[in-house]
Amino acid sequence: MTTDTINPPTRLLMGPGPIGADPRVLRAMAAPLVGQFDPVMTDYMHQTMALYRRVFDTANEATLLVDGTSRAAIEAVLVSLVEPGDTVLVPVMGRFGLLLTEIAGRVGAKVVTIERPWGEVFTSEEIEQAILAHHPRVLALVQGDTSTTMNQPLAEIGPICRRHGVLSYVDATASLGGNTFRCDEWQIDAASAGLQKCLGGPPGSAPVTLSTPAAEVVRSRRHIEAGIADGTEPTGVRIRSNYLDLAMILDYWGPARLNHHTEATSMLYAAHECARLLVAEGIDEAVERHRRHGRAMAAGINGLGLSLYGDQEHRMNNVIGVVIPTGVDGEHVRAGLLDHYGIEIGTSFGPLRGVIWRIGVMGYNARADAVLTTLAALEQELRRAGAPVPAGGGVDAALATYAEEEVAA
Amino acid sequence: MTTDTINPPTRLLMGPGPIGADPRVLRAMAAPLVGQFDPVMTDYMHQTMALYRRVFDTANEATLLVDGTSRAAIEAVLVSLVEPGDTVLVPVMGRFGLLLTEIAGRVGAKVVTIERPWGEVFTSEEIEQAILAHHPRVLALVQGDTSTTMNQPLAEIGPICRRHGVLSYVDATASLGGNTFRCDEWQIDAASAGLQKCLGGPPGSAPVTLSTPAAEVVRSRRHIEAGIADGTEPTGVRIRSNYLDLAMILDYWGPARLNHHTEATSMLYAAHECARLLVAEGIDEAVERHRRHGRAMAAGINGLGLSLYGDQEHRMNNVIGVVIPTGVDGEHVRAGLLDHYGIEIGTSFGPLRGVIWRIGVMGYNARADAVLTTLAALEQELRRAGAPVPAGGGVDAALATYAEEEVAA
Repeated sequence: MTTDTINPPTRLLMGPGPIGADPRVLRAMAAPLVGQFDPVMTDYMHQTMALYRRVFDTANEATLLVDGTSRAAIEAVLVSLVEPGDTVLVPVMGRFGLLLTEIAGRVGAKVVTIERPWGEVFTSEEIEQAILAHHPRVLALVQGDTSTTMNQPLAEIGPICRRHGVLSYVDATASLGGNTFRCDEWQIDAASAGLQKCLGGPPGSAPVTLSTPAAEVVRSRRHIEAGIADGTEPTGVRIRSNYLDLAMILDYWGPARLNHHTEATSMLYAAHECARLLVAEGIDEAVERHRRHGRAMAAGINGLGLSLYGDQEHRMNNVIGVVIPTGVDGEHVRAGLLDHYGIEIGTSFGPLRGVIWRIGVMGYNARADAVLTTLAALEQELRRAGAPVPAGGGVDAALATYAEEEVAA
Repeated sequence: MTTDTINPPTRLLMGPGPIGADPRVLRAMAAPLVGQFDPVMTDYMHQTMALYRRVFDTANEATLLVDGTSRAAIEAVLVSLVEPGDTVLVPVMGRFGLLLTEIAGRVGAKVVTIERPWGEVFTSEEIEQAILAHHPRVLALVQGDTSTTMNQPLAEIGPICRRHGVLSYVDATASLGGNTFRCDEWQIDAASAGLQKCLGGPPGSAPVTLSTPAAEVVRSRRHIEAGIADGTEPTGVRIRSNYLDLAMILDYWGPARLNHHTEATSMLYAAHECARLLVAEGIDEAVERHRRHGRAMAAGINGLGLSLYGDQEHRMNNVIGVVIPTGVDGEHVRAGLLDHYGIEIGTSFGPLRGVIWRIGVMGYNARADAVLTTLAALEQELRRAGAPVPAGGGVDAALATYAEEEVAA
């Protein structure tokens, strides 16, 4: 067997993620490694913590990376906060709410859900009522659920949780960096993300932040490994995972520098560069960029005579649901886009499979040329699929929104 | 706050890992991303499975990557194989045996250990006696425990386990690629590794292989996520982790391509390149390279008047324990090597802290120039620390072993 070195084709990834990483992030990953306790590495870890505080808009000391994809961070937060038998309330409005129920259940929680039809969001009142009815230890919910493109308003949720003594956890995997997220102002206790969406990096590293109360809960369950024990007495119910034990991960990232895993050096370089670029741009400016290009894409989709999916008042800036026109084979169009133009758009899960496409406008690909190229190519493939489509309708509508915003600016 | 892009200094990493990655692996990581279900990605995943079958020397279909550092793979194997209450037998001969007890305990196993003093290995008889005494479901042991530099002989362990109906799991994190490992011939049921040791990559991706019986155990606990359920009835005791559930990870890597995590694309590129380079060199040839350069380093250490730590008959090819001479401050010498030469050697854990240094000769750094440079610099720092040291003694002894092997070849 001889295998060639990888040589991936050039793709324009306009699905719900992963999207194409910023070339500067890819270059950062090619930098040589340093040792895990090298002062240079320790400094990069400190810088990374500081950068992600900016991205999460928080002063939380406990802000760090979990070495895995975004769901590793979800599980790290839940397994570290939740003791077996604790009640976790999960508002479910799409697949990723279901994922939270799945993970919470596996870590031993008693899971209670409330549900909204896919394509809608919850009101604060609904969530408060459910808290009063179930008295959960933790409320776990998704900010931007890419399965439905909905963005759950959060500003009132943290304060409701604080009033009722509930810890709040937000899965901001797909939303962070492209939609407003204010960890401290919204009084969120824990949040996590992934690099491969609005942060413009590859999947494989997952930023996490914990409020002081959440970090205290985690630290109250500190059990140091036998091989490196320092004589400290273990406390609290032992966390059911070693790899995803945030108490140990905090010790590794903190002044104690207790060995846990070996930090994934190249992914840390990537995470550092993702956040550095975002902070240099300005977080609010990056959110505004996602809004502007997402809006242009949505207008372009309408301009092609297609309908948007879900409550547009609550759409994530960075993912657009497109109703597949009657008589058109959605997978055939997707294959045409990939084969003819190297453009990927997303399929869907569960009840939306075959019903909508999901188009991402995020991270490095939240750019006008990416939006316009996608619309131009989609027009061609829709026409080939026999759909009635106005020539230039998509690109013209998108250009019109850009012109409109320039005039307004 | 303004933060510069990372710009790590050039280091020669001669510790127990991570070591400097092969530049070709770093370059592979800088390649652009493709979508997770892109046919190109699927092909890379297939190639990666085939390449790691070669590395593990197995025909196991279930050979894939876990997206995390090496301990993520250890936990994935144990949480997926072991049901709460099952007995797991762990022979402990160093810190990483203790880590196995730690992880097995957290996933709910009843953990039984046998112990050897640090610096020694077990006989097959000792392990068989313990199996007869405790009737474990799983035997979990480390091949190369970097904390002591010992390499546990395994050829007879798998057959013993098969005879007694025990599943065998080997943590080959630090040994694979630099020491002989024959998964099928030795009848090992599960093994895992990491990229950052003899495979010459960065930490953050962890190859795993499961024998047919082990994969059957894992698949007997298949519970598909609510959001993507296909109507299949779940079976067996649900695995306590979602992220590290090998039944789901097998579905993601297998023909079903059921979405689980989003494969860490850049780390997969790295893992692919690590294995590709190793297979191109020849696995046995790579092991021989580690033996040759490890032997030269050990001879050089003796040539500097220092003693080697542990049973040299059972030393890993790729890590050398060096007794810190009396009166020398080990950390001061390490700091001198880093500050003056950019060379990192390793400190130690637990009972060996301050007693030995650990020098790695592995992966991309299993090269004569890396060995000789390290010996030349160590000589200088030992002299500065006041140790009696023969001028040129380390380099000359290492060169003599290279010359000897060339004559013999």
